Amino acid sequence: MTDAVPDAIASDPVAMGWMQGFPPPPERQVLWRNADHWRFPKTRWAFSHFREMLPTVRVAGGNAAPLPRAIDESLSGLTFTPLGSDTPMTLEQGLLGTYADGLLVVHKGQVILERWYGVTGPETRHIAFSVTKSFVGTIAASLVAEGRLDPGAPVSAYVPELAASGFGNATVGQVMDMTTAVAFSEEYTDPKSGIGAYSAAVGFVPPSADYDGPRDMWSFLAGVAANGDHGQAFTYRTCNTDVLNWIVTRVTGQAFATNLSERFWQPLGLHDADVMVDSIGTPFAGGGLCLRLEDLARFGEMLRTGGQGLVPAAAIAAIRRGGRPDQFDTPHYPSLPGWSYGSQWWHSHGPDGGFSARGIHGQALWIAPEADLVIARFGSHPVAGNAGNDPISIPMWQALGRALRA
Amino acid sequence: MTDAVPDAIASDPVAMGWMQGFPPPPERQVLWRNADHWRFPKTRWAFSHFREMLPTVRVAGGNAAPLPRAIDESLSGLTFTPLGSDTPMTLEQGLLGTYADGLLVVHKGQVILERWYGVTGPETRHIAFSVTKSFVGTIAASLVAEGRLDPGAPVSAYVPELAASGFGNATVGQVMDMTTAVAFSEEYTDPKSGIGAYSAAVGFVPPSADYDGPRDMWSFLAGVAANGDHGQAFTYRTCNTDVLNWIVTRVTGQAFATNLSERFWQPLGLHDADVMVDSIGTPFAGGGLCLRLEDLARFGEMLRTGGQGLVPAAAIAAIRRGGRPDQFDTPHYPSLPGWSYGSQWWHSHGPDGGFSARGIHGQALWIAPEADLVIARFGSHPVAGNAGNDPISIPMWQALGRALRA
Repeated sequence: MTDAVPDAIASDPVAMGWMQGFPPPPERQVLWRNADHWRFPKTRWAFSHFREMLPTVRVAGGNAAPLPRAIDESLSGLTFTPLGSDTPMTLEQGLLGTYADGLLVVHKGQVILERWYGVTGPETRHIAFSVTKSFVGTIAASLVAEGRLDPGAPVSAYVPELAASGFGNATVGQVMDMTTAVAFSEEYTDPKSGIGAYSAAVGFVPPSADYDGPRDMWSFLAGVAANGDHGQAFTYRTCNTDVLNWIVTRVTGQAFATNLSERFWQPLGLHDADVMVDSIGTPFAGGGLCLRLEDLARFGEMLRTGGQGLVPAAAIAAIRRGGRPDQFDTPHYPSLPGWSYGSQWWHSHGPDGGFSARGIHGQALWIAPEADLVIARFGSHPVAGNAGNDPISIPMWQALGRALRA
Repeated sequence: MTDAVPDAIASDPVAMGWMQGFPPPPERQVLWRNADHWRFPKTRWAFSHFREMLPTVRVAGGNAAPLPRAIDESLSGLTFTPLGSDTPMTLEQGLLGTYADGLLVVHKGQVILERWYGVTGPETRHIAFSVTKSFVGTIAASLVAEGRLDPGAPVSAYVPELAASGFGNATVGQVMDMTTAVAFSEEYTDPKSGIGAYSAAVGFVPPSADYDGPRDMWSFLAGVAANGDHGQAFTYRTCNTDVLNWIVTRVTGQAFATNLSERFWQPLGLHDADVMVDSIGTPFAGGGLCLRLEDLARFGEMLRTGGQGLVPAAAIAAIRRGGRPDQFDTPHYPSLPGWSYGSQWWHSHGPDGGFSARGIHGQALWIAPEADLVIARFGSHPVAGNAGNDPISIPMWQALGRALRA
């Protein structure tokens, strides 16, 4: 981030006037065909309007009443010290510093702090990006607990189409924990990286005029090559999640949106959500869920309180246990010392038991069972990788946990 | 229609297996980039899945309970004689003959017959095509009744951007009744027609590789030329509706989806609907609404019962009065003798008072106040123009009216 990047207040999408007017003037338009949904500060509007730019499928839900409120505005003045800094900041400053679009802090089932910024409000279905992955992981962990999915079986046992790919001889468990070794780079700033090519296949970005690559994610995945030995180390690669979703789809006979609806959205009464789909209608499980922030918090509450009969106890235990810290990719995540990745969740192994679903540009669900705490945040930070906001976000979540345990 | 076109049973989208499997095999895929959503029999799947192929905006609604049921299965055996035929058919045969995807017959507020076919069910948001227009017309008629819109004022008074176009000196009333004279042909089978070019501008069909035309509907509309004198005769042209919606948007300061939500969806508790949008997020008022069939029927019930406080009495009266039969385009609509078009509604001027919202491929809302009758039907008839199904549909609706008045 350079000095040229406007801060949260200067980049407020309402103040900037994105897509205001009938029609919006050309200089205020946010256009998918120009990939404006990837261009800060237009992202600050776009992340709350993905379905207006891309094809999506409905996640059919219900009409749950709001969580009870017990707002404590004094929490916004809570101070903490960002990693690598000597200067404390307040929670309110931390939210601006991370370009938050919305925040809900839930303690013992009650919303104790609520913030909305820019064009994002309680009914907005904001893109959750890779927070989506943890929904897939929770379903997969549930299937394992139900005895319907064998974590030790090879991927090819469930998806023969992947037998010849780099995933074919990986185990389901390795895919769940992202310890597969495949040729796929998750470098957001390089359009020629694995994630760049994948985005084109998924339809997340407009294809170039001469594009002749895969037009759906499963065709792409079948072409991902091996690159080393599986099971050695965690390396974050989105493609693992869509492989996992392909497995889950085969086991359940249902698409991701249907599984979300039947397992979580309908029983919890979450409001209809949207999932981006590729050209053949496959939901983008690696990062395509758009949902209300309070529905994300409710999902977190369900997990915090033991699953509410929707997730088996063994799956809850697996998620809360986390992955292997000794296999974590610490060089790439210096702000996450001692963490692990397992079942598509990030685990802090900290004193509040905090584990997290995380998406680029600051999407976060933080569940700290020892503090009876759930935090849900949407954001539109100019930097994709959470390394851009973790130095603020992680101590901010942990400070809330300490305050609530005190 | 030739012998080569499969009938409703042979073209059933479940039987044909469209988009079934993970992934669906290539020969069973329905792809937007190939314009498959326009290709029968793939349309039989696509019309129930538009949001999975195109960008859409949410129409925020509610959670109304179902209409009461008083099902009378004997109605399906009701007979009538199609126009131009000597052979009676039953209602059930008529539904198959028009490739119905769903039917609800509502008498005195109770559903007396309900049918679902193929991939369409009670929760499906099926594309309503030009049925959408009658929602715009109802809002415009309401604004006229509220004194907020002057039907005698020129279009340019509300939308200066259209001053130099063929619409500039037309009156609002002429746009409402489609008696404008502009260079725009509504020929569905010719991609070079006005509606063909408009579809490309709206984003309804994939642009060709060398497409350099307008990329949003309002840019297109500003370029439509005059072609004769306004006010002489009704000629069905979709572009009128989006001009009307532009006017309504200016008068209300709200986009179409917001107007639908505040005027109808929220007060009636209709379930969230979807509207296709162009590349700058403008809802396609000429034909982009996707909604539940029962919500369409509820909208009809609201109008049948006098507006329920949501539509002013004067607007209801205007819609029920219809347009000028002497200005109707009888040569193009031989199955609609004595009809008229006004306020974006089709009026039969028949004994049951039947008036109708109509969309290509058989979408229909039929309101017959003198028979206390509302009929809502979705369809995927292979022929776009309703001339393909009117010889069955119109006598079928009228026979139901006669039976219920008897």
